[in-house]
Amino acid sequence: MIRVGIIGASGYAGGELVRYLIAHPGVQITYLASGTYAGKPLSSAYPSLLGQDLPLCEKYDIEKAADQADFFFQAQGNGVGMKVAPALLEYGKKFIDVPADFRIKNLDEYTRYYRMQHSAPELVEEAVYGLPELRAEEIAKARLIANCGCYATGAILALAPLAASGHADLNSIIVDAKSGVSGAGRSKLDVSGLFCEVNEGFKAYAVASHRHTAEIEQEISAVAGTDVKVSFTPHLIPMNRGILTTAYAGVDASIKGSEDLFEMYRQFYADQPFVVVLENGHQPSTKNVFGTNFCHIALTLDQRTGRAIVTCAIDNMGKGAAGQAVQNLNVMCDFDQTTGLTAPAVYP
Amino acid sequence: MIRVGIIGASGYAGGELVRYLIAHPGVQITYLASGTYAGKPLSSAYPSLLGQDLPLCEKYDIEKAADQADFFFQAQGNGVGMKVAPALLEYGKKFIDVPADFRIKNLDEYTRYYRMQHSAPELVEEAVYGLPELRAEEIAKARLIANCGCYATGAILALAPLAASGHADLNSIIVDAKSGVSGAGRSKLDVSGLFCEVNEGFKAYAVASHRHTAEIEQEISAVAGTDVKVSFTPHLIPMNRGILTTAYAGVDASIKGSEDLFEMYRQFYADQPFVVVLENGHQPSTKNVFGTNFCHIALTLDQRTGRAIVTCAIDNMGKGAAGQAVQNLNVMCDFDQTTGLTAPAVYP
Amino acid sequence: MIRVGIIGASGYAGGELVRYLIAHPGVQITYLASGTYAGKPLSSAYPSLLGQDLPLCEKYDIEKAADQADFFFQAQGNGVGMKVAPALLEYGKKFIDVPADFRIKNLDEYTRYYRMQHSAPELVEEAVYGLPELRAEEIAKARLIANCGCYATGAILALAPLAASGHADLNSIIVDAKSGVSGAGRSKLDVSGLFCEVNEGFKAYAVASHRHTAEIEQEISAVAGTDVKVSFTPHLIPMNRGILTTAYAGVDASIKGSEDLFEMYRQFYADQPFVVVLENGHQPSTKNVFGTNFCHIALTLDQRTGRAIVTCAIDNMGKGAAGQAVQNLNVMCDFDQTTGLTAPAVYP
Amino acid sequence: MIRVGIIGASGYAGGELVRYLIAHPGVQITYLASGTYAGKPLSSAYPSLLGQDLPLCEKYDIEKAADQADFFFQAQGNGVGMKVAPALLEYGKKFIDVPADFRIKNLDEYTRYYRMQHSAPELVEEAVYGLPELRAEEIAKARLIANCGCYATGAILALAPLAASGHADLNSIIVDAKSGVSGAGRSKLDVSGLFCEVNEGFKAYAVASHRHTAEIEQEISAVAGTDVKVSFTPHLIPMNRGILTTAYAGVDASIKGSEDLFEMYRQFYADQPFVVVLENGHQPSTKNVFGTNFCHIALTLDQRTGRAIVTCAIDNMGKGAAGQAVQNLNVMCDFDQTTGLTAPAVYP
Repeated sequence: MIRVGIIGASGYAGGELVRYLIAHPGVQITYLASGTYAGKPLSSAYPSLLGQDLPLCEKYDIEKAADQADFFFQAQGNGVGMKVAPALLEYGKKFIDVPADFRIKNLDEYTRYYRMQHSAPELVEEAVYGLPELRAEEIAKARLIANCGCYATGAILALAPLAASGHADLNSIIVDAKSGVSGAGRSKLDVSGLFCEVNEGFKAYAVASHRHTAEIEQEISAVAGTDVKVSFTPHLIPMNRGILTTAYAGVDASIKGSEDLFEMYRQFYADQPFVVVLENGHQPSTKNVFGTNFCHIALTLDQRTGRAIVTCAIDNMGKGAAGQAVQNLNVMCDFDQTTGLTAPAVYP
Repeated sequence: MIRVGIIGASGYAGGELVRYLIAHPGVQITYLASGTYAGKPLSSAYPSLLGQDLPLCEKYDIEKAADQADFFFQAQGNGVGMKVAPALLEYGKKFIDVPADFRIKNLDEYTRYYRMQHSAPELVEEAVYGLPELRAEEIAKARLIANCGCYATGAILALAPLAASGHADLNSIIVDAKSGVSGAGRSKLDVSGLFCEVNEGFKAYAVASHRHTAEIEQEISAVAGTDVKVSFTPHLIPMNRGILTTAYAGVDASIKGSEDLFEMYRQFYADQPFVVVLENGHQPSTKNVFGTNFCHIALTLDQRTGRAIVTCAIDNMGKGAAGQAVQNLNVMCDFDQTTGLTAPAVYP
Repeated sequence: MIRVGIIGASGYAGGELVRYLIAHPGVQITYLASGTYAGKPLSSAYPSLLGQDLPLCEKYDIEKAADQADFFFQAQGNGVGMKVAPALLEYGKKFIDVPADFRIKNLDEYTRYYRMQHSAPELVEEAVYGLPELRAEEIAKARLIANCGCYATGAILALAPLAASGHADLNSIIVDAKSGVSGAGRSKLDVSGLFCEVNEGFKAYAVASHRHTAEIEQEISAVAGTDVKVSFTPHLIPMNRGILTTAYAGVDASIKGSEDLFEMYRQFYADQPFVVVLENGHQPSTKNVFGTNFCHIALTLDQRTGRAIVTCAIDNMGKGAAGQAVQNLNVMCDFDQTTGLTAPAVYP
Repeated sequence: MIRVGIIGASGYAGGELVRYLIAHPGVQITYLASGTYAGKPLSSAYPSLLGQDLPLCEKYDIEKAADQADFFFQAQGNGVGMKVAPALLEYGKKFIDVPADFRIKNLDEYTRYYRMQHSAPELVEEAVYGLPELRAEEIAKARLIANCGCYATGAILALAPLAASGHADLNSIIVDAKSGVSGAGRSKLDVSGLFCEVNEGFKAYAVASHRHTAEIEQEISAVAGTDVKVSFTPHLIPMNRGILTTAYAGVDASIKGSEDLFEMYRQFYADQPFVVVLENGHQPSTKNVFGTNFCHIALTLDQRTGRAIVTCAIDNMGKGAAGQAVQNLNVMCDFDQTTGLTAPAVYP
């Protein structure tokens, strides 16, 4: 049994990690850190956890943390991972940072998007970008993982096969993404997050300036073997969970129909247990992956314009955050990738 | 491994049964009957099940059913259980009827509420009302279970301790219940079920005439040891899942505060793993039991009027249908009651 | 043209007042006070108002207010009316307080429920409770109106005919009310108001302790001519607007069917343009009164238990707040009651 | 007073027309045709209309229609306009077809997208495409209007200034649109329209094959003066109303920043009362145009990729259907364009 600790347990990603890890036969949650709920059970933050056997929340303390667990998830927020990871790694612990601290290899780009100087740049170099569908071998050997961002997961899974294929016009990529509201987290309080302000409305935000652009471009460039820029537009859907990514890219004449795209993707993801390439005529819905680590993808060739249109559904809290983090743990600890992650969506 | 069959697998309750049973270590789903999806995988009805290892759906056939499974859930609809149960029981199978065929012992009352003559009245007599918190011993010995209705589950769990206590005015009971929309099922198509007709609206229906009144009164009367009538008003909440029951009953002067009610309920449910009696100051939310078999209850004494106000949250598809059915299976098959049912709610 | 000012223009009730008053042919909005948006157009709070001809918001100032308008709505919050009303009345202005400062005649009760000492008790005595269906004559002569609370509007309209009839058991009244979320306002920021915390959940709150209990009892007692206590339970519906009130009261044997109740209510509300008593077999939905000043009521006699069950739908922001305030203005200023208030609900 | 008739009054667009026309000082609704509700008041379809003074619904009959009204809206469905328009025009009536019968000038294209032969091709030639922001002069002289489609309205208003400017790469246009559910109408009943199937889910549909592609291309081509093809992807948002269009187009180097785009659009729409070009830093939300005929547009230059990103919010039932139809009536009948259409959104 691997002893697991969660730093930032009372946020949405923290709560979701607890939910997956409770179902995982190879780990035990032995440490929960939360400033807000220190001294209390996590069920005081999430009454949905009443009756579950969990340690009390504590204020984060490196000595206690190191004593009580061997594998850590940091889910508190940006800027925390670079502070706590160095000491925990020194203690020989493994560490998955769910936010963005270690994702961007180019530190100038990091600073530009996140408006922070990085305090642990050497760990940025060491960290492996935690998207197992692309980097399982590196992840298996890593002690520090930068968990892939929610929008980035959708965008990269939607585009990687095409970027790798050599058949896409890499200057034409557009990623139009739509997310449920839980991505904003539980701690940020302002008028725009109130139920009545969100409900029955739809809008774009951070147009042409969202932070995940950096990691999407970094990883698509890596797959393509050349520098790629994308236009990325996130939108807010009035629902709790789910990201639907609609990605566009021009393709060359060798792609003659949607079926060719389907084959390309099916082969690319043939060994990936969480990526389902839907047959022609079906479209992914975020409902079908709600609360899970699955990713559903559909391919359409727009014959009239010569563009591939890729639609991709994930749960932003699942495959886009906590589910993916557990999948990374599975790879790092040599469990089967699907351990603890096979439960289907709650539907409807 | 118990071989389990589901008749009516493609409805909401059927799909929810599949979800719980996939997670159950002691059973295997070996038979799925669905008229609509015969010959197809259940994932064609629920793409959320893509990647799960399940038998194809078949048109219901008694020989094949009896050959392929030993324990049956019927989740197709009212009037089906009385048709299929007799033959399956003759084959020595165990049978849980999720709809209402075997719930009402008084056949006149049954006919009045359901406008059907019963074709298997002798089985009504044999059937055990499937609410394990009240009838676990009988359930353990039964071969035929009438799974408790969704509203009835909320109402009975909310009122049983009070009804049993001798401190309630049994002529004063009012049950005001509110349900998510999945209770209407997946097969009934009319304008009133359209998204736009339901969304952003709230209303009562079947006021003073809902069918579940019969079983609520039957079971509360059994607990109280005397004939009890209740006023029952169901309402429709614009959300997918969950029932919040607000029950009112006058209490005598021996009940001096909410704390007395809390103690009464805590003792009554002390050994029940799925009923959580919340401490004073907390109110149950359907969100906290979403997708689960849990029931959260809170007690308030309205000092000014001498009434107990009980609020009780369940998931109508979980503790109100499929979760409860699996809990009944657990009791019937001598598993721990919680087997396959411990996953906490997906939150938020 | 009556020059109208709104104090607290940027809250939800303030914004809703603006919406109704724009459509009112007899008034002109000449003054808008908002601390948060002082110096800015109200469209910076509500972009839905872009293109409307409105004065800039200002910080509230008694001299400027008195100079610029003759009729005031205070919609900022509890405790504000008692501060600003005295001076404005001294200037000869008319004043409608949308929150609760002047609603409760019994000052002890006021202090118990609102945990404040009242600083203008003589005005409490003078103020008229602003529910035009019951007090139009007094309202017509008043200079100070305590606008009826949202839950109170639903409960009083649901119960007044019964309370006045002499046929109800006045000790048996239960009010189970369900409200959309806008009732919580726009200024209170805490975790429980976040979209994800509210969406897809339903719960009760302030059980047996909600402040509106005081005014419901005050007005029902006035109608009944005797002291009446009620049990009142509010609940939160995951939607923006609307209150559905389900009220229960035992009735005597002279009430033989739902039809008798229908006649009783139809007569009671015969001259009321905003109260629609639905014919038997129909139930009110909050959707049908969304964004309006209408109130839909249905009556059912629960023959088995001898109880009347009254269901009543209003929009908490319309008939429950701003619509009602404009209706009060109409009565006070001798407009037809329906002036500016006839637009039907946006549906769906 | 213009006597107005609505054919297909009980659908969502019909109901919405009634709502706007009730508020219109220059017209009177004198004829309502509905097969389903013939002989009944329209309030039996929409209880939100209880208390409004409206004619009873009738089965459509050309003689009675021609006798009772002078201006007709057809809102029943595709294929109806071509049947009823010829006779009504012969009677000298004016006619606005809300569905698609007269929108597509190229009849081959019409047949390909709508899978119908057109039975009144000469009227297609005569009909004016009813988007007043582009064709007010023609509309003013027309007797037959093809009301612009909902998605088409969003897409054309988002792209017209850019297409007209000469600065866009017309081969690079992508329209990613998201719509509330009311666009599907009230009459189509299948499982996919049930509340629980839509709620809390998001998906694309009709990818690269939606019918509105034809009219978007027709009108953008007309503005651009050359043949333009676009990729168009519609998505379904789990909410009642609203379309958010996100449009992408490469621009030349003369466009140096978002401010240049803002100026371009502000000038283009300077005289249009319903189009609001938002200042930089603001994004349109469908909430802000809910239930109205307004259109909010924001412009962003994605500097890194050289693309303009246009976001545009309308209400699909308002500016996307009934509001626009009334605006067309205003132009045809020489009312001010805004008559009856100035009410701001109900918010929240």
